Amino acid sequence: MGTALNALIERGAALMCWADPFFPDPVIPEHVKKATLEAIDVGMGSHYTMPIGNGELKKEIAKKLKEYNKMEVDPDRNIIITPGSDSGLLFAMMPFICPGDEVMVHEPSYPSNFLNPKLLGGVTIPVPLRAENNYQIDIEEFEKRLTPRTKMVLLTNPNNPTTTVFRRECLEKLAKFVVDNDLILVVDQAFEDSVFDDIEFVSAATLPGMWERTVSVFSISKGMSLSGYRVGYVVADDKIMDVMYGCAVNILGATNTASQMGAIAAISDRSFVKEYNKIFDKRRKVAYEVFNSIPGVSMAMPESSFLSWVNISKLGTSAEISKYIIEHANVVVNEGTPYGASGEGYLRVVHGCYKDDNVLYDALARIKKALTKLAEEKGVQ
Amino acid sequence: MGTALNALIERGAALMCWADPFFPDPVIPEHVKKATLEAIDVGMGSHYTMPIGNGELKKEIAKKLKEYNKMEVDPDRNIIITPGSDSGLLFAMMPFICPGDEVMVHEPSYPSNFLNPKLLGGVTIPVPLRAENNYQIDIEEFEKRLTPRTKMVLLTNPNNPTTTVFRRECLEKLAKFVVDNDLILVVDQAFEDSVFDDIEFVSAATLPGMWERTVSVFSISKGMSLSGYRVGYVVADDKIMDVMYGCAVNILGATNTASQMGAIAAISDRSFVKEYNKIFDKRRKVAYEVFNSIPGVSMAMPESSFLSWVNISKLGTSAEISKYIIEHANVVVNEGTPYGASGEGYLRVVHGCYKDDNVLYDALARIKKALTKLAEEKGVQ
Repeated sequence: MGTALNALIERGAALMCWADPFFPDPVIPEHVKKATLEAIDVGMGSHYTMPIGNGELKKEIAKKLKEYNKMEVDPDRNIIITPGSDSGLLFAMMPFICPGDEVMVHEPSYPSNFLNPKLLGGVTIPVPLRAENNYQIDIEEFEKRLTPRTKMVLLTNPNNPTTTVFRRECLEKLAKFVVDNDLILVVDQAFEDSVFDDIEFVSAATLPGMWERTVSVFSISKGMSLSGYRVGYVVADDKIMDVMYGCAVNILGATNTASQMGAIAAISDRSFVKEYNKIFDKRRKVAYEVFNSIPGVSMAMPESSFLSWVNISKLGTSAEISKYIIEHANVVVNEGTPYGASGEGYLRVVHGCYKDDNVLYDALARIKKALTKLAEEKGVQ
Repeated sequence: MGTALNALIERGAALMCWADPFFPDPVIPEHVKKATLEAIDVGMGSHYTMPIGNGELKKEIAKKLKEYNKMEVDPDRNIIITPGSDSGLLFAMMPFICPGDEVMVHEPSYPSNFLNPKLLGGVTIPVPLRAENNYQIDIEEFEKRLTPRTKMVLLTNPNNPTTTVFRRECLEKLAKFVVDNDLILVVDQAFEDSVFDDIEFVSAATLPGMWERTVSVFSISKGMSLSGYRVGYVVADDKIMDVMYGCAVNILGATNTASQMGAIAAISDRSFVKEYNKIFDKRRKVAYEVFNSIPGVSMAMPESSFLSWVNISKLGTSAEISKYIIEHANVVVNEGTPYGASGEGYLRVVHGCYKDDNVLYDALARIKKALTKLAEEKGVQ
């Protein structure tokens, strides 16, 4: 933790700024805990796996990809285990981006998406998603930013912070755009486990012509709440993987051995994810009700995950209101601006924190009280 | 494991090709095991730490740096925890290398060192170390390869595969070369824990003018035999760290939480490293005796770690002899060629594998028998 954050924790602030489910409470499922502990206990946890990952884990992932993502892959050829999906995401982009190459990044989006192209010498081209359009893809916004240097589209699906699940018709248009212009798609599906209201979740790699030009990035950090395990995986075509296998040790090293054993247990029995989703489903409805009952504050019903994307623009800027909430409600939330220019006037509130619903509801009530008072003071109705 | 390697394991081959101490046997020290298990057991192991790493671990590292490396650093400013030292090594180079920049890499060296500059768009300039010079640095070899594009020297100290501990006088010359030509030094000290015969180990960052232009990369994988934990750390000046802190999450993500708790225990009580070094010390002497008793085969006494760098050039090429050893001794060793052009005619044999000395000695005896027969057949004396 940073020093400022530590000071806030010491004064008992509620942290709703960390996309780490149930943080800081213990929630490791028993079967996952058992597999992890055993790997340490029998001693194999201190030895490397191959940098490309544990073979048994890759087999379990291939089964899950088939069941959940409708992707049929060869576990020995199309999967690399990564030490979390952050390094996996940059790794997925590395083979393609040469200096000056342009990467289209929808905004709002995960903050790392804006910096990643630049870290590789590329250029980030933000492409707006609009609240009026439920933050779905407007393909014309992509088309009008196409240049001879466009190389890649970077997609976060479901989106963070907006929780948008990109619909099939949007993804089909995006896929056609990618294929027609000979681009690469890197898609971060870290939040795919928690999609509500029976919205169809479509893995972009399954769309026509996309398998051979898509690198899909996955994580067990979010829906499975195993962020401290640091296990992610990257899935791609043989040709792309030939390059990635050749530099996996240089860029990633190997992934934690005991965590990979825990991940085998987690992915082979994912029933606990359903239980978590019931909790997140209940909480999103509470958050929706609370925030929309505050004068001048609004949010759409989250489509996925455990995030609230809250419009507070009638009360002040992101910086002003997040500071106000720390001071008057003792809760830490995220300013909207790191998620893109259109994040000004928004807050990201992680309603997935804490195991006990009541801790969360208390924090939401404090925010409501503080912002209601502020709205009154400002005469916002 | 790769498929070919799996087949060899199934037929009971001894693996002396993995720089993973005591692999595949269990050796986690009790205090380290306890700390790791507890992190999982109380549930915090499933939550992220900050991408820059656990603050308590950084404090313990700072103490160790002062004691062992004679480096005084601010744990909150000069240390980033990395998910192993492989990703740490590339991360250490990233802020400095622009397309076309030249990176001087001594050879023999760790294989990743030759690819890393290219992955960043740079150019690898191999600089020979000579067996006749005990693989110490010959500064003239660096000087004559200096160009206006030279940006960095990449050093592995102690060296892998030669086990060379670079002597103070060599490092002083190298430091002067780096300072005089306004270069950056990235030094990988993954093998620093195991140095024999009271050879002085000098951390390059402590030499005059070097702190502000050195990035030092460390690991708990080798001397501490905690490779599967995936914990390394990078140490540098404030100015360099300002850049690294700004992109740590993008490039590295966070490091495994439970492993960091284990690493706190390991680094705060390093007595087990002394015990390991006694084992490695004994084994290097056995390996030295065995290999030098084979006609046409020779090796120098290892100065560090648990590696034998064996000259088999009178019997054949690296590829031929490693293949012969698999077939006739059922032992897998490393060909010398990935370590640099001068590695032809050499093998790297990991004598740190297996907990039971006798398993290792049996494997060495099989190699001796096979190569002695080969030498006879070839008439090599």
